[in-house]
Amino acid sequence: MNKLADISTQFSEWYQEVLVAADLIDQSPTKGCMVIKPYGYAIWEFIQAEVDAKIKEKGVANAYFPLLIPESFLKKEADHIAGFSPELAVVTHAGGKQLEENYVIRPTSETIIYHMFSRWIKSWRDLPLKVNQWANVVRWEMRTRPFLRTTEFLWQEGHTAHATKEEAVAFAESILELYRVLAEDFLAIPVVTGRKSKSEQFAGGERTLTFEGLMQDGKALQMGTSHVLAQSFPRSFDVFFQDKDGTITSPHCTSWGITTRLIGAIIMVHGDDRGLVLPVPVAPIQVVIVPIFKTDEEKEKVLAAAQAIAAACKTEHIRAFIDEDTEKTPGAKFFHWEVRGVPVRIEIGPRDVAAGSCMMMDRLSRDKKDKKPCALTEVISTLKNTFVTYQKNLFEKAKQRRAAQWYHVKTFDEVATQLEQKPGFYQVGWCGNGECEASLKDIKATIRCCLQEHKQEYCFVCGAKSTGDVLVAKSY
Amino acid sequence: MNKLADISTQFSEWYQEVLVAADLIDQSPTKGCMVIKPYGYAIWEFIQAEVDAKIKEKGVANAYFPLLIPESFLKKEADHIAGFSPELAVVTHAGGKQLEENYVIRPTSETIIYHMFSRWIKSWRDLPLKVNQWANVVRWEMRTRPFLRTTEFLWQEGHTAHATKEEAVAFAESILELYRVLAEDFLAIPVVTGRKSKSEQFAGGERTLTFEGLMQDGKALQMGTSHVLAQSFPRSFDVFFQDKDGTITSPHCTSWGITTRLIGAIIMVHGDDRGLVLPVPVAPIQVVIVPIFKTDEEKEKVLAAAQAIAAACKTEHIRAFIDEDTEKTPGAKFFHWEVRGVPVRIEIGPRDVAAGSCMMMDRLSRDKKDKKPCALTEVISTLKNTFVTYQKNLFEKAKQRRAAQWYHVKTFDEVATQLEQKPGFYQVGWCGNGECEASLKDIKATIRCCLQEHKQEYCFVCGAKSTGDVLVAKSY
Repeated sequence: MNKLADISTQFSEWYQEVLVAADLIDQSPTKGCMVIKPYGYAIWEFIQAEVDAKIKEKGVANAYFPLLIPESFLKKEADHIAGFSPELAVVTHAGGKQLEENYVIRPTSETIIYHMFSRWIKSWRDLPLKVNQWANVVRWEMRTRPFLRTTEFLWQEGHTAHATKEEAVAFAESILELYRVLAEDFLAIPVVTGRKSKSEQFAGGERTLTFEGLMQDGKALQMGTSHVLAQSFPRSFDVFFQDKDGTITSPHCTSWGITTRLIGAIIMVHGDDRGLVLPVPVAPIQVVIVPIFKTDEEKEKVLAAAQAIAAACKTEHIRAFIDEDTEKTPGAKFFHWEVRGVPVRIEIGPRDVAAGSCMMMDRLSRDKKDKKPCALTEVISTLKNTFVTYQKNLFEKAKQRRAAQWYHVKTFDEVATQLEQKPGFYQVGWCGNGECEASLKDIKATIRCCLQEHKQEYCFVCGAKSTGDVLVAKSY
Repeated sequence: MNKLADISTQFSEWYQEVLVAADLIDQSPTKGCMVIKPYGYAIWEFIQAEVDAKIKEKGVANAYFPLLIPESFLKKEADHIAGFSPELAVVTHAGGKQLEENYVIRPTSETIIYHMFSRWIKSWRDLPLKVNQWANVVRWEMRTRPFLRTTEFLWQEGHTAHATKEEAVAFAESILELYRVLAEDFLAIPVVTGRKSKSEQFAGGERTLTFEGLMQDGKALQMGTSHVLAQSFPRSFDVFFQDKDGTITSPHCTSWGITTRLIGAIIMVHGDDRGLVLPVPVAPIQVVIVPIFKTDEEKEKVLAAAQAIAAACKTEHIRAFIDEDTEKTPGAKFFHWEVRGVPVRIEIGPRDVAAGSCMMMDRLSRDKKDKKPCALTEVISTLKNTFVTYQKNLFEKAKQRRAAQWYHVKTFDEVATQLEQKPGFYQVGWCGNGECEASLKDIKATIRCCLQEHKQEYCFVCGAKSTGDVLVAKSY
């Protein structure tokens, strides 16, 4: 029962401790990787199920492409190789021999998928083509942090090809909207959506759309991206089709993905001094039932009542767990499930059973007086209402915190002087010039996202006319 | 509309052609790998969903372990490295540098999982521990064949640790039973279950349980395995726990898996001269609706009726697809969906609509006269009945074929003279001696499985007392 590091002053330590205390991961013997334990992996499974169903509704079908990509493929698109080359893991030997051509482990699969697209796309009738794969990818990162940046990570990568640029842009935008709904409604994480500046774009992309969250320490996290690729990309892989009018041209492609990083976002947006706080849809256990008793007679009655609640939950597809451990005190159990972020706790003792009720409390409540009695006949309806309110409060809380860390300033100096003390989103005007953007390197910040808003008239660096507001922040 | 190779005389060519004709896979630029196309991958998704739900009912939780395993790990268990060493793919360079220690791409994950078990298992209270991972693995095979043996393949690998050998054996057996039910009830493939002989065991295992199917060409296919590992395995990774009586010992472990190979089994057991034949539960499209019309007026009425059928199917979670293609003839559509193995076809034209009916036919029927009229009001109930009968017939047909290829003989000479002409399962007595087993190498056959039966009194090779019947066959 160790106390966690202070979340407000030692956020990074707190994060590392929560990962272990909440039983999400363990250290891996492979550098920069992590072992995702069942409690952590279950969160990913819920995210997967949600995204998988939603993209299938959009006509995307899952497929599977090889893990190992011929090294030469990466070199076909100049920007792409420049972007990924430093991060590649290379297989040089296999089956006891040195290979004639090396293979790289996929850092992303555009190259091999476009090779296949060149076989599958011949006519406008073959478009749009929409595939996705759930896969592992490897990028040899210098500095890693569990879930946020790991050498190997799990993701989905969607790849589509369209006859026109308009269609590709519209599709990439519709995926961004799907991701926004995932973040806000499913994970209760408010996000900003918009375009990345050119320097932050995908290697080989035409435009990159992003959704960015703000973590409690005021740092931004890119939670996922949706790219429209430059036509040079399919062209490099000989992807051409005959259009309705007979012309031969390359399709316009999109790629988009979310990763296990989203679990890191959940931790860093919702967690508190007592540990993890989970959104209802991704909680492996949505309600934990703690039976409280002393005598055997009490035990029998209390467990029977607890089992009746659990059975009712199962019928309603609510994930309930009865903590029947006989060695832990109720207090130790409360602690155990709080640090794991279980949304709702039910306590039930002999007096409750006699009164035909139980005590219910959600994970955002801190006070004993927040425990509310609930008639056993109304447990399910009360639970459902509690889940709705809890999820809403989780989102509101995160929105309020973000609002408090969202600054509107006019000049680079203001950003530079305030950012260290008051990290957060800095909304400024920008002329669109890469040189102005590059000056952010000095203060280790970046433009996270270009906004639709145009509140500031002048660029925060050069003072020229702004082409639109951007969000500046330090980031993970 | 090319005709497929003759299934009875050119089975291997037929198999390769069906893979492509049924749109299951495409050639991959990575040696020995395949690209699994959406229609093929969907079959895997249905298998995954079924197995995932069933193993979770047994208390198994999914987790994720790194793809890359330090090369030294593989060397910790002597038999294991001897078994897998020739097949390893090795990462020697990453992030632009040569690595200090090479990593191998997991051929299976016992080594890295037992490293983690040594951290997780301290007391009998930590047991049983049951994890599973859905993952890709790489084994550098000399001869590959899509789905059956590929350099990279997809699988689930379950790993459990138990306090006693009895418990481990019972659990491995319960998984074998789960797999048998999967094969027979879900995939309609009759299988034989039993132990492997020592020479065919998992590298580092104590005993290997297998379920074997017989393909139409009379060759056996190992469809999956469930191993009990020797205690030397966890010991090599310092996995020890304190038992109830205070003694320190190693747990008894199991590992078990099924792979994308099962898709190969489906093709080779059920396929026919017209292509793929899919079991209902794994058919991406369970019923295809072919509207037949000439005039626009007919089209409107027929499509409306087809859409009503599709909508009713959706409500009932039946996967229906209307083939609205305007360029293909009905005959071409029939061919198109037959080769893809769709279980049921519905045809509907203006006369059917007028009569309030449609025509229904399942994939096992060959004759026009097998088309049955079905009232539109009864489509769903008729479909459900047809699915049940079809699935049952699929299984019966496979059982009959297997029975016709199952021979009972007494001597090695009988096996040797018949096997080439009449490939199949040869049930013989065996003394249990490895030397007798080794003589099968001369005729390129193996003992596939040790049976519970004891029909033959003497060993088919040496003539000594038999310890039990075994199945001998050529295999994939």
